[in-house]
Amino acid sequence: MKDEYQIVPVGYVRSRIKSRDQAPRQGRDSSVEARIEILPRFGDALRGAGESTRLMVICWLHQADRDTLLVHPRGDKSLPLTGVFGTRSPARPNPLAVYTVDLLAFEGNILMVGGIDAIDGTPVLDVKPHVHRLDD
Amino acid sequence: MKDEYQIVPVGYVRSRIKSRDQAPRQGRDSSVEARIEILPRFGDALRGAGESTRLMVICWLHQADRDTLLVHPRGDKSLPLTGVFGTRSPARPNPLAVYTVDLLAFEGNILMVGGIDAIDGTPVLDVKPHVHRLDD
Repeated sequence: MKDEYQIVPVGYVRSRIKSRDQAPRQGRDSSVEARIEILPRFGDALRGAGESTRLMVICWLHQADRDTLLVHPRGDKSLPLTGVFGTRSPARPNPLAVYTVDLLAFEGNILMVGGIDAIDGTPVLDVKPHVHRLDD
Repeated sequence: MKDEYQIVPVGYVRSRIKSRDQAPRQGRDSSVEARIEILPRFGDALRGAGESTRLMVICWLHQADRDTLLVHPRGDKSLPLTGVFGTRSPARPNPLAVYTVDLLAFEGNILMVGGIDAIDGTPVLDVKPHVHRLDD
């Protein structure tokens, strides 16, 4: 069985958050607006994406530690060590982040969204419509 | 800027669905139960994962077509061609699937979950607790 796969960024997050120490603990706690710039060669994949006002954006947290399996939730050392699959820590074997966000504006290859705390330059891997029946 | 990243399966889906033509159109439409087998070397990451009854499981749909950018939603040719980012089609540049599922049982490195339509052998990339505040 093939054991590794290649992912390819389809775009990048553009944000006023420039480093990890500026990032809030959870995207939805913030009122941060971010711009998702989809690369021109994937532009066709956006056709009709503006029909949904709620999107799921999957990012690759390229600065996260992939070797950590146990963390103190929210960095609080008074909380017991917990497996990363039991937390939303960025540290995890595949540092994927799933953001459920409001689509604020959409023009060309640019999506403006609310509630993404990823730092400027974070690779975007996928965009999907959020579907209540599937995702809530 | 680095343009490609390697993902690594942390486990596999075990299911009675053995091929794509047996799979329903959407996981949550089905009552399919699946077993998620986490590889032993990632076992520590599961510590505390059983605290949540709702999980987000991210899979890599290894049989999906990565070159398709436009699809007829749900395979219905009467519907106009739509960009894959506007649909939940498995075909997409990075064939990531996000399943929000009920955790039915948890023992050792095995999670029993309801509502995953991925075929037997599908790589699992990540498991997260579903958090209402973030994900609904």
